[in-house]
Amino acid sequence: MQTAILLYPGFTALDAVGPFELLHRMPGNETVLVAREPGPVGNDSGNLALVAERTLAETPRPDIVVVPGGPDVRAAADDPAVLEWLRAADAATTWTTSVCTGALVLAAAGLLTGRRATTHWMAMDSLAGHGVRTTGERVVFDGKYVTAAGVSSGIDMALHLLGRIGGDDLAGIVQLMTEYDPQPPYDAGSPDKAPAHLVDFCRGELASEVTPSA
Amino acid sequence: MQTAILLYPGFTALDAVGPFELLHRMPGNETVLVAREPGPVGNDSGNLALVAERTLAETPRPDIVVVPGGPDVRAAADDPAVLEWLRAADAATTWTTSVCTGALVLAAAGLLTGRRATTHWMAMDSLAGHGVRTTGERVVFDGKYVTAAGVSSGIDMALHLLGRIGGDDLAGIVQLMTEYDPQPPYDAGSPDKAPAHLVDFCRGELASEVTPSA
Repeated sequence: MQTAILLYPGFTALDAVGPFELLHRMPGNETVLVAREPGPVGNDSGNLALVAERTLAETPRPDIVVVPGGPDVRAAADDPAVLEWLRAADAATTWTTSVCTGALVLAAAGLLTGRRATTHWMAMDSLAGHGVRTTGERVVFDGKYVTAAGVSSGIDMALHLLGRIGGDDLAGIVQLMTEYDPQPPYDAGSPDKAPAHLVDFCRGELASEVTPSA
Repeated sequence: MQTAILLYPGFTALDAVGPFELLHRMPGNETVLVAREPGPVGNDSGNLALVAERTLAETPRPDIVVVPGGPDVRAAADDPAVLEWLRAADAATTWTTSVCTGALVLAAAGLLTGRRATTHWMAMDSLAGHGVRTTGERVVFDGKYVTAAGVSSGIDMALHLLGRIGGDDLAGIVQLMTEYDPQPPYDAGSPDKAPAHLVDFCRGELASEVTPSA
């Protein structure tokens, strides 16, 4: 089994590393970071780089694809080589997945048309604009297409996948080893729960940070 | 304000990237990945590398230090250059922090002696062996020393820090933008909650994966 996590300039680090950290612990699952070119790929803030170990061409048939998001996904969603790789890989994947605005990249490749899917709460309209049936759930399964909400939700998505692929005990062991027993000191993690003035602030001041290709 | 996240061969990726993703969103906080040498640093599984942008020598006075853990922290805990940098930086930090077995590195530098602290649940005895008063809490504050439990707990630690440094609204905005509204499909994230046979499995089969320098 091989899991390919796509990197592209401007990706959000935790979108990629959350699923990585859980999925690579599955026995027999080779987890590789892939990009158009090998070498360091810079994140959305420009102060972190993850190294792509393989090119897209070297990774033609992953069993699982994970597409992380970012505030601006055009480096992936407007790149014909990335879209072509996604379409070709998807033809043979067991699971095609995204975190956050990575769903906009899958949508740009035409893979989510008519499907139920989710994305970062601030990008929901953009995703709907691709003919996707958006939902407010944190992790959405539609057949083999699995999409997760914003940034940190990729951890929950990975646990769901581990359970489906390897069973509840495998998922539990990985949850225990990564001590994923979340205890956030605030309850502001979704627009339904956060104080209204914080939601308004994000929609206003920070909207330009989520300007997906739509 | 500057936050330095230490990288060393064998670190666990999510230990570093969880706090990174939240802390770098604090306005005016330059967040840098640092290591003894610049360039790619490989993780515990050998299939992910993060790029260290600065050397320890180039980062003498960070305001916040974050030390990630790993199944084997000897590359940091047995490196005199790392320990000397930690002690010198700590003399001027506002917060000195660790995630997971990163606490064993702080302890090896002598910074946790007699203090309350935590670590990965499987490394608790090793940490106690350094003269540390261990606790089962997920995030432990003892003055400016902040330690978090295993792997994913660094996200919770970062939220606590954001609240202390920038106030509840800042922490809430970052939680909302990273959509940290955890909904794990299992409740196996701590040894108190996981089924006993999974705890036993980890203690037996996987114990060699957590062999800290103690």
